[in-house]
Amino acid sequence: MKSTHKLNHIGIAVRDLDEAVRTYTEGLGLTCTHREVVEDQMVKTAFLPAGESSLELLESTSPDGPIGRFIAKRGEGIHHICLEVPDIKAAIADAKAQGMRLIDEEPRRGAHNMWVAFVHPKSTHGVLLELSQPIEEAVES
Amino acid sequence: MKSTHKLNHIGIAVRDLDEAVRTYTEGLGLTCTHREVVEDQMVKTAFLPAGESSLELLESTSPDGPIGRFIAKRGEGIHHICLEVPDIKAAIADAKAQGMRLIDEEPRRGAHNMWVAFVHPKSTHGVLLELSQPIEEAVES
Repeated sequence: MKSTHKLNHIGIAVRDLDEAVRTYTEGLGLTCTHREVVEDQMVKTAFLPAGESSLELLESTSPDGPIGRFIAKRGEGIHHICLEVPDIKAAIADAKAQGMRLIDEEPRRGAHNMWVAFVHPKSTHGVLLELSQPIEEAVES
Repeated sequence: MKSTHKLNHIGIAVRDLDEAVRTYTEGLGLTCTHREVVEDQMVKTAFLPAGESSLELLESTSPDGPIGRFIAKRGEGIHHICLEVPDIKAAIADAKAQGMRLIDEEPRRGAHNMWVAFVHPKSTHGVLLELSQPIEEAVES
């Protein structure tokens, strides 16, 4: 069976977005193609493509946001990974059928015009895992 | 400038490789294509492709190995990410020129016929970052 999944991005929690962008561009040769503020997640983000995946650097705009709390508890580092799946509703149903704990039981709208749903790290061997599907491919049914 | 970097894989430290493979295949729809024991790193690994990247699940064969120590300290979860670069020697030189701390100052042979060099998390905003280049593309000079 060929996997139809794709690693969409890796989210990295950082204290200072500009400084982190400098590290990953000047120090590591990546290119920053896009910046975005996601108000409801209380983050400023920067995207740095690496092949068909990206690194997504995340700075919290508030100590109370999820990234602010993550950094207070664990320090800077990888916060989540995002796996693009062909059918997010089916992926959620399959995960639940295997007894996995979902943070989002239904897909919700995320950044970049994607349906997203997070799987709890307790069910993934410690990885906060975002399932995603581009919205143009429609999950309405 | 187009990025020539590629996200090769994400290494995930797990306590029980068989159980983790079951989670990521049966629960999340990925496929395990390859298993390998890397004696000098004291790990058993399983590779699950996701597009042009892979998840690499890592179980320590000894509590004294790097993965065993990581789990004892932080629990299961993402251990490192691996970025494939066009020229690993140039990448190391660029990172050093920016004052970044390298764990390997010279490329060394890693698994899967790759030259590898690790960058210290203190220089990457908390990410243990592996630079890699396929050995067939030769860095001998």
